Amino acid sequence: MQQFKRIDRVLIVGGTHGNEWIGAYLVKKLEQHPEQVYRPSFETVTLLANPAAFAQGRRYVDRDLNRAFHPEALRDLTRSAFESTRAREIVQTFGEKGTTPISLLIDLHSTTANMGLTIIVDDHPFNLRLAAYLNLVNPAVRIYCLARSPQEGSSLPSICPLGCTIEVGAVAQGVLDAKLFQETEALVQLILDYLERYNKDQIPKLQNTITLYKHMGNIDYPRDAAGEIRAMIHPQLQFQDYEALQPGDPMFLSFAGEVIPYQGCSTVYPVFVNEAAYYEKNIALCLTQKLVIHSEELLI
Amino acid sequence: MQQFKRIDRVLIVGGTHGNEWIGAYLVKKLEQHPEQVYRPSFETVTLLANPAAFAQGRRYVDRDLNRAFHPEALRDLTRSAFESTRAREIVQTFGEKGTTPISLLIDLHSTTANMGLTIIVDDHPFNLRLAAYLNLVNPAVRIYCLARSPQEGSSLPSICPLGCTIEVGAVAQGVLDAKLFQETEALVQLILDYLERYNKDQIPKLQNTITLYKHMGNIDYPRDAAGEIRAMIHPQLQFQDYEALQPGDPMFLSFAGEVIPYQGCSTVYPVFVNEAAYYEKNIALCLTQKLVIHSEELLI
Repeated sequence: MQQFKRIDRVLIVGGTHGNEWIGAYLVKKLEQHPEQVYRPSFETVTLLANPAAFAQGRRYVDRDLNRAFHPEALRDLTRSAFESTRAREIVQTFGEKGTTPISLLIDLHSTTANMGLTIIVDDHPFNLRLAAYLNLVNPAVRIYCLARSPQEGSSLPSICPLGCTIEVGAVAQGVLDAKLFQETEALVQLILDYLERYNKDQIPKLQNTITLYKHMGNIDYPRDAAGEIRAMIHPQLQFQDYEALQPGDPMFLSFAGEVIPYQGCSTVYPVFVNEAAYYEKNIALCLTQKLVIHSEELLI
Repeated sequence: MQQFKRIDRVLIVGGTHGNEWIGAYLVKKLEQHPEQVYRPSFETVTLLANPAAFAQGRRYVDRDLNRAFHPEALRDLTRSAFESTRAREIVQTFGEKGTTPISLLIDLHSTTANMGLTIIVDDHPFNLRLAAYLNLVNPAVRIYCLARSPQEGSSLPSICPLGCTIEVGAVAQGVLDAKLFQETEALVQLILDYLERYNKDQIPKLQNTITLYKHMGNIDYPRDAAGEIRAMIHPQLQFQDYEALQPGDPMFLSFAGEVIPYQGCSTVYPVFVNEAAYYEKNIALCLTQKLVIHSEELLI
């Protein structure tokens, strides 16, 4: 059993990407209604992470803030992109050695992929248990497990070992979808309630089966010699996040009408299918493996 | 009966908005395959209207190109926004007095609203008949009739009296939806076929009933004193483009959870519901009136 470590300060982040409005507007709402995130046993603070990008209705100004937190990059003061400076500011405030260090971070995102309500966590037992609890209370919540790697270590949530990312979709950039807004809001409330119970050592024992979608890798769009996209996500795969994709199933459809199948050798479960922001990252979809485990296995 | 005027040159435009990828990529495809738009009786040319915005994955660089064609603005050479210059270039090439004037223009757009396959036309009898024909061949095609006003006269299609805009959705910006891509492509082919038959005086008599959605006006988001949005499109209205909205039906949902109903006095049919690009134009949705007419009434 892990040592009990009290949660003292929780940071709710929205607008890490300035065109993901659900998180940004929810943070703006909570700024005006701090009573809604008040819990007796810990402090909750909010942050609009990239206000400049939000004001411009863009994902970022110079570069992706959610890839700007690699420790090496943070030390390199010659990096003067807007997001590099902003990342240093955030770490100096909320990081482990910051002025007001946090115990846990909730980062609010949205996606153009049909990912419904997704909790993205690493494999830290505390985070997995939190995700399992959310899935128990709301079975529509899916758990996407993305182990921290040197690359993923550059995300904003990487500044704090505890916490999760809420990823909701499908929703276009720069759009408020009221249903997803309310569902995100409800998830945030649920997390705060969980943390309150955790601090009071009142977490119920989880006695259920948990489905995890474990990240395996990414697939890029088919491209021509000049690097230009030459195919689209196949209509049969579009919006089918978390549905089984079998070897031989249609994956892409070229502009010329040619079907390009999935050529792996096992069943996978795609996520981030046709996420707008991932074209420039050479990601057409991410592949996951579906794991069903008993929740007691999380009590390590 | 209108005087017969032969179609000599057709312009297919994509990427008027740089983040509407279906039209942009379709134009790029047709550039490489001019044989697909070849018809014996007229010339077809293609144009990626805003390549700079397309390269940046944004709607526009400095300002909306589709509002930059007002004759007064075109004459004002002090306007040096990228899109002002580009608009003059387009008019000098394809306008009535341009180097290669066009007879008809097809402008390819996409929207985050659930508008399916929409043909936007003004009330020119030629354009209405074209739209009626498309609706006859493909009943999924909806006809949105937007009379040319001084304001609408600033759109790119306003440089040519004949033609239409194809508006497809829902699709996020900077995303290729294969189904909508193929449907847009099929509509373009259908229009070219129609024009070929028109030039040969082989247009069949239309003997059907046509439903038109006639533009009535726009509604903005509820805002606070500072001009900040304070409500979202209500979940019951989201994605319900072209569905009847009755007085008293939920229209907005405030961040605080308050339902704001439609307060008009007659049934309307909303379009462009929650279009991302219209937040900055103070448009949450457009209202239309549904008109059912016999196609013979178009033969004026």
